[in-house]
Amino acid sequence: MEKRIQLTAEDRASFHNHADYCVGTGRLGLGLQAEYQEQLRLVQSKCHFKHIRGHGLFHEDLAIYQQAKLPDGTVREEYCFTYLDRLMDAYRACGLRPFLELGFMPWALASGENRIFWWKGNTTPPRDESAWTRLVKATLTHLKDRYGEEEVSQWPCEIWNEPNLPGFWENADLEKYLRLYQITALAVKEALPNMRVGGPAVCGGNTIEDWMERFLCFCRDEKLPLDFVSRHAYMGAAPERKGRYLYHTMCDTDFTIEEVRRTREHIDRFPMFRGLPLHITEFNTSYNPRCPIHDTAENAAHIAGLLAGLGDVADSYSYWTFGDVFEETGVPFTPFHGGFGMVADQCIPKPTLSAFEFFCNLSGECAWRDDSCVVMRHQDGSWEGVAWNIQRKGRESLTLRLSLPVSGRACLMTRWVDEERGNPLAAWHAMGEPASLTGEQLTFLREAAVPGTKAETLEGGQEAVLTLGPNAALHFALNPAPLSPDDGYDYSWYGSDPT
Amino acid sequence: MEKRIQLTAEDRASFHNHADYCVGTGRLGLGLQAEYQEQLRLVQSKCHFKHIRGHGLFHEDLAIYQQAKLPDGTVREEYCFTYLDRLMDAYRACGLRPFLELGFMPWALASGENRIFWWKGNTTPPRDESAWTRLVKATLTHLKDRYGEEEVSQWPCEIWNEPNLPGFWENADLEKYLRLYQITALAVKEALPNMRVGGPAVCGGNTIEDWMERFLCFCRDEKLPLDFVSRHAYMGAAPERKGRYLYHTMCDTDFTIEEVRRTREHIDRFPMFRGLPLHITEFNTSYNPRCPIHDTAENAAHIAGLLAGLGDVADSYSYWTFGDVFEETGVPFTPFHGGFGMVADQCIPKPTLSAFEFFCNLSGECAWRDDSCVVMRHQDGSWEGVAWNIQRKGRESLTLRLSLPVSGRACLMTRWVDEERGNPLAAWHAMGEPASLTGEQLTFLREAAVPGTKAETLEGGQEAVLTLGPNAALHFALNPAPLSPDDGYDYSWYGSDPT
Amino acid sequence: MEKRIQLTAEDRASFHNHADYCVGTGRLGLGLQAEYQEQLRLVQSKCHFKHIRGHGLFHEDLAIYQQAKLPDGTVREEYCFTYLDRLMDAYRACGLRPFLELGFMPWALASGENRIFWWKGNTTPPRDESAWTRLVKATLTHLKDRYGEEEVSQWPCEIWNEPNLPGFWENADLEKYLRLYQITALAVKEALPNMRVGGPAVCGGNTIEDWMERFLCFCRDEKLPLDFVSRHAYMGAAPERKGRYLYHTMCDTDFTIEEVRRTREHIDRFPMFRGLPLHITEFNTSYNPRCPIHDTAENAAHIAGLLAGLGDVADSYSYWTFGDVFEETGVPFTPFHGGFGMVADQCIPKPTLSAFEFFCNLSGECAWRDDSCVVMRHQDGSWEGVAWNIQRKGRESLTLRLSLPVSGRACLMTRWVDEERGNPLAAWHAMGEPASLTGEQLTFLREAAVPGTKAETLEGGQEAVLTLGPNAALHFALNPAPLSPDDGYDYSWYGSDPT
Amino acid sequence: MEKRIQLTAEDRASFHNHADYCVGTGRLGLGLQAEYQEQLRLVQSKCHFKHIRGHGLFHEDLAIYQQAKLPDGTVREEYCFTYLDRLMDAYRACGLRPFLELGFMPWALASGENRIFWWKGNTTPPRDESAWTRLVKATLTHLKDRYGEEEVSQWPCEIWNEPNLPGFWENADLEKYLRLYQITALAVKEALPNMRVGGPAVCGGNTIEDWMERFLCFCRDEKLPLDFVSRHAYMGAAPERKGRYLYHTMCDTDFTIEEVRRTREHIDRFPMFRGLPLHITEFNTSYNPRCPIHDTAENAAHIAGLLAGLGDVADSYSYWTFGDVFEETGVPFTPFHGGFGMVADQCIPKPTLSAFEFFCNLSGECAWRDDSCVVMRHQDGSWEGVAWNIQRKGRESLTLRLSLPVSGRACLMTRWVDEERGNPLAAWHAMGEPASLTGEQLTFLREAAVPGTKAETLEGGQEAVLTLGPNAALHFALNPAPLSPDDGYDYSWYGSDPT
Repeated sequence: MEKRIQLTAEDRASFHNHADYCVGTGRLGLGLQAEYQEQLRLVQSKCHFKHIRGHGLFHEDLAIYQQAKLPDGTVREEYCFTYLDRLMDAYRACGLRPFLELGFMPWALASGENRIFWWKGNTTPPRDESAWTRLVKATLTHLKDRYGEEEVSQWPCEIWNEPNLPGFWENADLEKYLRLYQITALAVKEALPNMRVGGPAVCGGNTIEDWMERFLCFCRDEKLPLDFVSRHAYMGAAPERKGRYLYHTMCDTDFTIEEVRRTREHIDRFPMFRGLPLHITEFNTSYNPRCPIHDTAENAAHIAGLLAGLGDVADSYSYWTFGDVFEETGVPFTPFHGGFGMVADQCIPKPTLSAFEFFCNLSGECAWRDDSCVVMRHQDGSWEGVAWNIQRKGRESLTLRLSLPVSGRACLMTRWVDEERGNPLAAWHAMGEPASLTGEQLTFLREAAVPGTKAETLEGGQEAVLTLGPNAALHFALNPAPLSPDDGYDYSWYGSDPT
Repeated sequence: MEKRIQLTAEDRASFHNHADYCVGTGRLGLGLQAEYQEQLRLVQSKCHFKHIRGHGLFHEDLAIYQQAKLPDGTVREEYCFTYLDRLMDAYRACGLRPFLELGFMPWALASGENRIFWWKGNTTPPRDESAWTRLVKATLTHLKDRYGEEEVSQWPCEIWNEPNLPGFWENADLEKYLRLYQITALAVKEALPNMRVGGPAVCGGNTIEDWMERFLCFCRDEKLPLDFVSRHAYMGAAPERKGRYLYHTMCDTDFTIEEVRRTREHIDRFPMFRGLPLHITEFNTSYNPRCPIHDTAENAAHIAGLLAGLGDVADSYSYWTFGDVFEETGVPFTPFHGGFGMVADQCIPKPTLSAFEFFCNLSGECAWRDDSCVVMRHQDGSWEGVAWNIQRKGRESLTLRLSLPVSGRACLMTRWVDEERGNPLAAWHAMGEPASLTGEQLTFLREAAVPGTKAETLEGGQEAVLTLGPNAALHFALNPAPLSPDDGYDYSWYGSDPT
Repeated sequence: MEKRIQLTAEDRASFHNHADYCVGTGRLGLGLQAEYQEQLRLVQSKCHFKHIRGHGLFHEDLAIYQQAKLPDGTVREEYCFTYLDRLMDAYRACGLRPFLELGFMPWALASGENRIFWWKGNTTPPRDESAWTRLVKATLTHLKDRYGEEEVSQWPCEIWNEPNLPGFWENADLEKYLRLYQITALAVKEALPNMRVGGPAVCGGNTIEDWMERFLCFCRDEKLPLDFVSRHAYMGAAPERKGRYLYHTMCDTDFTIEEVRRTREHIDRFPMFRGLPLHITEFNTSYNPRCPIHDTAENAAHIAGLLAGLGDVADSYSYWTFGDVFEETGVPFTPFHGGFGMVADQCIPKPTLSAFEFFCNLSGECAWRDDSCVVMRHQDGSWEGVAWNIQRKGRESLTLRLSLPVSGRACLMTRWVDEERGNPLAAWHAMGEPASLTGEQLTFLREAAVPGTKAETLEGGQEAVLTLGPNAALHFALNPAPLSPDDGYDYSWYGSDPT
Repeated sequence: MEKRIQLTAEDRASFHNHADYCVGTGRLGLGLQAEYQEQLRLVQSKCHFKHIRGHGLFHEDLAIYQQAKLPDGTVREEYCFTYLDRLMDAYRACGLRPFLELGFMPWALASGENRIFWWKGNTTPPRDESAWTRLVKATLTHLKDRYGEEEVSQWPCEIWNEPNLPGFWENADLEKYLRLYQITALAVKEALPNMRVGGPAVCGGNTIEDWMERFLCFCRDEKLPLDFVSRHAYMGAAPERKGRYLYHTMCDTDFTIEEVRRTREHIDRFPMFRGLPLHITEFNTSYNPRCPIHDTAENAAHIAGLLAGLGDVADSYSYWTFGDVFEETGVPFTPFHGGFGMVADQCIPKPTLSAFEFFCNLSGECAWRDDSCVVMRHQDGSWEGVAWNIQRKGRESLTLRLSLPVSGRACLMTRWVDEERGNPLAAWHAMGEPASLTGEQLTFLREAAVPGTKAETLEGGQEAVLTLGPNAALHFALNPAPLSPDDGYDYSWYGSDPT
């Protein structure tokens, strides 16, 4: 397929880019691990995300809530912030602020045995509401004391995770969630009046409209604090299982965006909530951490499509998750295992990392946007953009012919990932899909993961031709590049004659 | 062109690989610079050279030889080892031992004004022979005290550099060089009896045979210590100047190897010197630090050819030089400037770095060698090798069809540099050949400098087909790779169907 | 107290220094954490331990043993080495080899519910012996494949931990331990014939002699592999509880050494086991990870005493544990919390780290040893040594007057920790014992943790006087130090006149 | 001596703290060296200086100004910014902006042979004024292009260095300096209209008043740009030479401050210049880089005195220099050699580094200042301050008794350097003043260089008693520190009873 796009310096298009606002992570306790932190540093060196959101703040492994049995048989509540401090310090060292998710129930506060994941997170209501709100307030107050009220007030705070699923909230009991929201939101504001609080953090599916309606009515009627609304969005449909893995077809990016738009419109039907920020606190292609799509170039192409459009309907969208240190279904056996991460274990970038890098670093004003590219213009007259070519089993290439007004000699720099480049999965397969990598294999895979690069000279307003192979995600920059050779340097003297 | 090579586990060929024995460096004083050390660390992370040799041990900037004027008007000799220690410590931190070159005359000891290079190294005989030998002995004794006699005795020690050129040794005066060798070699052995000493460090050209003959006769007749013979070898011929730059045609690799072979045979005609080690203490394509070939893929291809053959005629061959922090003709204006280095300034790898990486890490036994490849066999039944395709202005590809006995599923991993891959020069040209790089340009160039990678599955003894574009240097490894997929993982479910 | 020690170059004393052979760690799974690895790097930068031993190789969090339920309802055993590789790679990057402890029972293989520690390690026999030995063999075979047989054969392998305690081995059932040893030792040798295997890893107390007797008889009678014998040794007695903490008086170092000597003699009474290596695979003052002695200078003094003497009776002694990332009794609330570590959380050295540093770096031949010092002589005529002054509530100083033959000007360098220097605990107390440290507090505590230093000039064989305050551990070095001032440098021109 | 200072929360005193505004460096070309950058990183990790000023921007080794001889015999001017970029990037990586000193004459532009220092900086007027201003404009324009106009406009720009000394400016020719200032200041503004430009960068002495008068009149009369006035200030008097070293007595801090005050008043007598910023672009005790005072605690005490007072009379004061990589009198033979640096070679801190650290990190409002201390109060009710005790050969201690209103339990944290602590010089002397340090000696000296620390508990408004030994510089912080022990933790159970 081929497209021709001709732009002038005056062209403008709508594009809301929140790609770098937030990123997801496996449960917070894993943030103490060295491998996790290395993957995070790698991702941040390219994407510079601003916030990070993950599960399990109050899960056992962070060990915040403690009960000491006293000699007289009574129990004293204690709060242990040793690991929380260590984690928050690590995030800050990576330039990240938390997007707090208040959730998972300390076992000692749980009202039931409903547990989820390999790591057995408890997902039942508190058996003592005031103990729960004391815990929330103590935690936020501690963070305020350590990092300052001004700082911590900038951390958004979401209450619970996907309560409309029975695994994440016992019986998916809506009434009990509303009650939880009520007491928790008030507790948050008590501790930190300027912290932004929100919910209901629901996943998509057929219950979301009911939940959203009831949640918004409840907040309105009870006059509860509500600074933002949150939901999740995944593209996976029609799952099929094979061994440890789940495969499914993916919905269109448009379908997914429209799904979110309905929530946006739902909110806006409440006059008092019109324009209230909507955060997609999780999104991805598949919702399953053992779906091989996450390791592929196809994933990067889907995500590029979403990143171009989600800003129309939401104020942020947090990719679930930045890395592959993640234990929801247990410890993986192999470096590639369909994990959510943009980075495979041992810091091997997957194609999706580049898709994020491309969007997170875009600047300038949008001059053009369609279903396969975004083009930005800088004040200094240079241009950049991102393009993508989603091919589910198809093999069609996409050629974009861009006429962008740059006078004189210019340089077109493209960087891309696709089935061939920046895509270590095929190489790992050729190696036999080894579980333990040798040093040589690891070096090879990291080199195979580097995006393709190409730099071309364009003369006198010459058209920029971008050819995207199947499932490519591509960044280009077109800069004025007058030739200023050092006296006598002829780069073409040696070597074979170029074609 | 196409070749077919069929090997069994029993095939053996001759190949002497000393690629990692030594590497050259600009004048030693530059070794104190941060950029120099970063380039060196990068090179060492890939090549793990064992020794390093450079000019200017006794030049002013290392400040070893000092004269203090005393109140009574007399002069006291002093030796300052502050910078020497700092330099040696830096080399050791990179896993390197020096290959000492005793040379350049401290200005205060010089008998004349003959100077060379932007940095004005004095190249005249000492005006006081005993002051010179005191300096040599004091320096070696200091090194012995600091690093231990056993350690320092392993550092080869060459006397002077290219005395058969008048720029490097006043009037290219052979008699005076012989005298210098005599007093210096004896001084070395006095300080460190087990240090290996050698010379005459001559460059090629029409005087080399005379020099070699006289030098060997002199050592024999005077019963001087001589532990190795050294010379240089460059491929450049017929220079042509253009602005600041020099261009010339390159001799064949065979021509260069034969030239060295004549020196080998020359030595062996002296019964007492038969088999004495011969070190090529400098080699490269062009001998000029402003020859653009050094920045190109063609350079890598030539060097691969030399690395395959030089071991037949020499015990080591030291590439001049590892990096581009080098000031012989002044400070360069641009990151690429035809410098000798395997790495351009700001740590941008050039193609030649990969050629060295490929050879320095070869192991196993040689099963095949010809004029375009070397094939090694490992005890465990895996194979690896290096291939190259020198094309001066030609555009012919080279296809190698290798039949190597590996049973079952195998993985063929290739990494290569050529005109397209691992070759940042063309990208820099497209950028306009900027002198100052932006951060984005630097990142782009470093990615462009990563070698190409390809991993293929071979089944049941299938032929390995290596296609080398013009001026490619390529490494391949063929390893048994039984497929061991994790239960249910299907890497090909998603993405476009492979062709 | 004052002692006078006069030595000549000929004096020799017996001293077996195995301080650097092995160090302990909390459960292995914690080795994945960033803070753990930072503490380990700090310790290794000073002590350079060779081996590391910890619990929980087969505990859930390393996730090695897995059971997959197949669609047909059967169960397939799987071994996951993802985390094991990551851990072993981290150890090797710190220059460490494991001292393997085969132990803790995967929950899926456990025969009962006996569990220990906050992290719930199962300590029951396998319910399927062959599944257990398959696990052992699969694990060792994997390690052999990854790191090489020669390398892995150098890792000692101990079977289980403290089976004579019912917490660590259900009912402390000796017969069942012997059976476990039998099948496991044979499995080890099957996988790696040259791996050294041993047991019974018992703790001290009144059952140890019975256990040792039965174990040795059993190995002899059953002709089982036995390459070394292991036991533990702690100095704590008469515990008293206070809140979360345990306090007890400490036995003498001599008492502890004698206790080990009895085991040594016990082994030697078996002719076939005479001289068999005896490894103390855990030792410390208190055996409790909430005993404040571990944070004190007194601890360092006790340990110094043990390090001087334990080599008489054992082939190694592994301090339990190097760092404070340790969760046996849960997550600590405060940086100092009586943890076993030589280093408090956030990498604050405790005095005991210096005691180890002093012993681990000792070299030369022992010239003198008594109950408060060890003096070593180097071939080059210099001297060094370690001294200590254990004071339980006492306040006596110890003065050592050493006459060591060094001719001419000499330099006496001492470094020490005691109640005042290298002891951050008192400073932390003055700060109010904060749970969360500010950056300023952390910097202050790290500076407070630096050992005291003193350098003195001794002239003409002058006596070296070492004054040790209460609970000091001190290292000294006495080196020839002829004065070689730079011309005109007078260090005493400025500043107040020295006393 | 003893002083009693009683303060309330309302006390205020005048104190202008510009300690962190700027620091000096040896010639800029040395900034490319690895050791230089390590020393700078160390200093910046403690002091966080904002600007850095050094000599030799246009000296040969930065190689900016070049002349190429063309084939037709004419000469083409060229500007090479390779090293300048590398240097500026290194400064920025350390968080530093340059305080530019436009100076030293490229040899090719020099009108004479007047040279200074081991590195032979040319100090004559340009022989072609327009070539000089082209150079200035080209350099500033390049910096603007690379780092942005907004950024570079924040770099102050001083014209030449100490032109009132004949070594630094041929014949100390005032008229020629005024001409240089005129053409250069105008060139600066032409390139960067918002850059602040100033002079005359004179040293103290008997010519300074004349120079200042003439300079200010000239600027006024010629209506030249003048954004700040600059001068230098050193305390050294009555020099005495001994070998390579210079010793002199030091003027009082008051004397030095008064000297600067006269310049301040001089400026203010010009109505149009009243209040114009005055920068002391160099200050120190001795002006000689081979004066041992720089290595001593006495130096730190003098500097503390100056840092407390110089803000009364100047807008900044730049310590000459941060480190000991400095070659004005050649390469030093020994790690301590009286160099200006706060850090000796191999990154050994000298006492003066702590004096700067103490002042650079002071915050809050000044409550008290006298000739031996500064006391600051924070909004949260805590206190901090710096005290010093200058003793030239005297041995008097200084005791400060501070009554500072802090209610409840408080912690007094003091850190200090003096003759005993944080002072590695005496240890190095005891070692024999070795030129080459062993690894053990280096470790020892770095530990000896750590400041003393002490943390005390004060109860109920108890007086803080600070005892300063001779030549101490001390920082204290007094913070509320309620005791919050973990349940049962008794830090005093073990160890000797405190006195």
